[in-house]
Amino acid sequence: MSEQFQVKADPELWAKLDMDVERFSNIPPMLTGVFNDVFLSQENRPQGMGYFDNMVSNIFTGRIQEMYDAREEGRPVVGTFCVYVPEEIIHAAGGVCVGLCGGSQGSIGDAEKILPRNICPMVKSAFGFKVGRICPFFQVVDFVYGETTCDAKKKTWELLDEYVPTHVMEIPQMKRERDKKLWVEEVKDFKTAIEQQTGKDVTETELKQAIETMNAKRKAMQRLNDLRHHDPSPISGRDMLLIQQIAFYDIPERFTEKVNELCDELEARIKTENYVAPKGTTRLMVSGTPMALPNWKLHNIIEKSGAVIVNEESCIGTRYYKDTISTDGTNMEQMLEKLTERYMQIDCSCFTPNDDRIDQVIKEYRESGAQGIIDYCLQFCHTYNIEAVKLRQACEKEGIPFLAIESDYSPEDVGQLQTRIEAFIEQIQD
Amino acid sequence: MSEQFQVKADPELWAKLDMDVERFSNIPPMLTGVFNDVFLSQENRPQGMGYFDNMVSNIFTGRIQEMYDAREEGRPVVGTFCVYVPEEIIHAAGGVCVGLCGGSQGSIGDAEKILPRNICPMVKSAFGFKVGRICPFFQVVDFVYGETTCDAKKKTWELLDEYVPTHVMEIPQMKRERDKKLWVEEVKDFKTAIEQQTGKDVTETELKQAIETMNAKRKAMQRLNDLRHHDPSPISGRDMLLIQQIAFYDIPERFTEKVNELCDELEARIKTENYVAPKGTTRLMVSGTPMALPNWKLHNIIEKSGAVIVNEESCIGTRYYKDTISTDGTNMEQMLEKLTERYMQIDCSCFTPNDDRIDQVIKEYRESGAQGIIDYCLQFCHTYNIEAVKLRQACEKEGIPFLAIESDYSPEDVGQLQTRIEAFIEQIQD
Repeated sequence: MSEQFQVKADPELWAKLDMDVERFSNIPPMLTGVFNDVFLSQENRPQGMGYFDNMVSNIFTGRIQEMYDAREEGRPVVGTFCVYVPEEIIHAAGGVCVGLCGGSQGSIGDAEKILPRNICPMVKSAFGFKVGRICPFFQVVDFVYGETTCDAKKKTWELLDEYVPTHVMEIPQMKRERDKKLWVEEVKDFKTAIEQQTGKDVTETELKQAIETMNAKRKAMQRLNDLRHHDPSPISGRDMLLIQQIAFYDIPERFTEKVNELCDELEARIKTENYVAPKGTTRLMVSGTPMALPNWKLHNIIEKSGAVIVNEESCIGTRYYKDTISTDGTNMEQMLEKLTERYMQIDCSCFTPNDDRIDQVIKEYRESGAQGIIDYCLQFCHTYNIEAVKLRQACEKEGIPFLAIESDYSPEDVGQLQTRIEAFIEQIQD
Repeated sequence: MSEQFQVKADPELWAKLDMDVERFSNIPPMLTGVFNDVFLSQENRPQGMGYFDNMVSNIFTGRIQEMYDAREEGRPVVGTFCVYVPEEIIHAAGGVCVGLCGGSQGSIGDAEKILPRNICPMVKSAFGFKVGRICPFFQVVDFVYGETTCDAKKKTWELLDEYVPTHVMEIPQMKRERDKKLWVEEVKDFKTAIEQQTGKDVTETELKQAIETMNAKRKAMQRLNDLRHHDPSPISGRDMLLIQQIAFYDIPERFTEKVNELCDELEARIKTENYVAPKGTTRLMVSGTPMALPNWKLHNIIEKSGAVIVNEESCIGTRYYKDTISTDGTNMEQMLEKLTERYMQIDCSCFTPNDDRIDQVIKEYRESGAQGIIDYCLQFCHTYNIEAVKLRQACEKEGIPFLAIESDYSPEDVGQLQTRIEAFIEQIQD
């Protein structure tokens, strides 16, 4: 498989999406190269990764075609940037929810022609993709659903709206009863926005079904992450990151099935003691800000330095699937309330206070059998960056080795990161 | 007066406030030097500035002693960082409200031992003042009232609370009916916090009186700013900035009286055509982030480059006093609602959308007879920094010369700023 892998191209489809086809044509070969280096160079990968590799191969073609077809059928295609946008409602309306978070250096120059330089690379990357018309996902969506989780995103949506309709959901900054009240109203507005797009109401049956579908997806990911915690590790951190990234653009039912198939395989591998990293490999956990596809920089450095990553406490990680929605709600009002309660459990650093997250990181550290935490912060992400102070304090108290890293998508700091990470691994091994 | 000016010292008082007296003793002479250079070197200043110069002279002594005495009398002394904290409630309880925003480079090193470097200098400066025990204001307060207007402040309060009790008020991110509902609840909580501090309830009569007092203060500042808009200018931008800074730590009634006296003097000066800048001096307006005392950097550069500043669209500027509270409310519930409505009119960039602010900047530009706008953004302030994109677009549309500047408190960029500002002034004069 590894020799034949390539990220496919479909200039005709891209032209239909009003993309800058000429410029974009450089991207698939570039991604093919990086993917070969980061993923296909690994040994003894689980067979089940074939499906996910294929999803990368089709990332700009087959999957986009599916979304294009959905839109042609009148099903809403909604772009999001955050785990707080309740995708259950999109699925209930027969729609497609696609995470648009930008993870690439290539579009940042486009963004910096308009946006300030010293804001988060994810926000810049995403904005640049739209401005440059070099992201088929951005081009295929009916609208974007933004939220107010951080200053940079909140203010960038105002500018993005000039390029693609961008609705914004207010996420409160605390988690008290009055905040929940506001949040439920926001969820209801979101439902209305989706219904306006489709021209018909979401029914209780549809929402119930969508909640079950998404719960099943999140449970499959929980199962996978539990298996992955086995020592020695049956799957690499890179492969796990990839799966967690694909979770944001695959069809939920299909994805769930494939994750569960991979889980079956990992269970069998554990029984036969067939691992990807030998016993004694340093086990690290990553916490912090999300790594949007194709941001594989830190994982690549860590695992090529000889450690294995055993957990991601991140939006593209456990924060996306650690909680499911209670199915106690029977009518629309109750279901929306239960849904909101689930989303309120997500412990993004945008909340204050947010001590639950500190506890959660320590809990995941214990459960994953990690030997140290690397806290990853996207450059200029104030909330995670400042919260890292509290996290460091907690780790010091618990005697957990802790390394805080702030980085962007550029290759400039790779050497320096390598040095720091290798020193951290040595310190753990001592 | 100018030869005798000095910022006074009171080591005994500082020791009672548990300050780092030895280290702090360097500050008054340093501030004396800067004040002489920035303010007392100006010619033909209004007589009425004597009071405000005196407030600076007593900034670490007489005024602190007054606050100390208030605290000894059981009156609450509350530190704030934002124009969204409703000071009427503090005054109604007989308390003292003091703006703590840090405007100095001297405490940033203390902060950076704990906080990330790449956040707003105002937040770092303030946090460093407390950590280093080198700010008598911080030491004299009973507690700090923070808010959630930006990521850096919101998350820093969690850390500040380890040094001084820090209550946080949630400010919503939009301005719809549901946001107002939440906001009114926050205001009520604030009232409760003050009442818990004093041990007695705020009465309707007290609140009514405090609203009138603060309305009178804001109206005096409006009057002063209107007079200052006269062409030629009867007062410098530096002096205006100083008065607007002192507004955050003086006693309201006394301050109002002195501002009105100065207004009388300026009216007389306008009649006799006695101005501080000759007809034809380039008139600039500053918009953007607040300049906390002693941050006089930009004003000093601009006015020493030969222009005069005729308006500050800023929290330490018009945002603090452009709106007053409707006195239609007769009972507590109504008064708190009217109060909240007034605070909701403030157009901080933390809101989305925030087009009202763009309109307000243009309006103030017209009213002040400015010939160009310098938008000032504290480094790493994402909300103002990104909003500057929209502001630039609006200025281009209106044909208004516009210069965006991002800076911190360090002297390193002074030369570069000077060059840019001189070029901007030349461009306007052409």
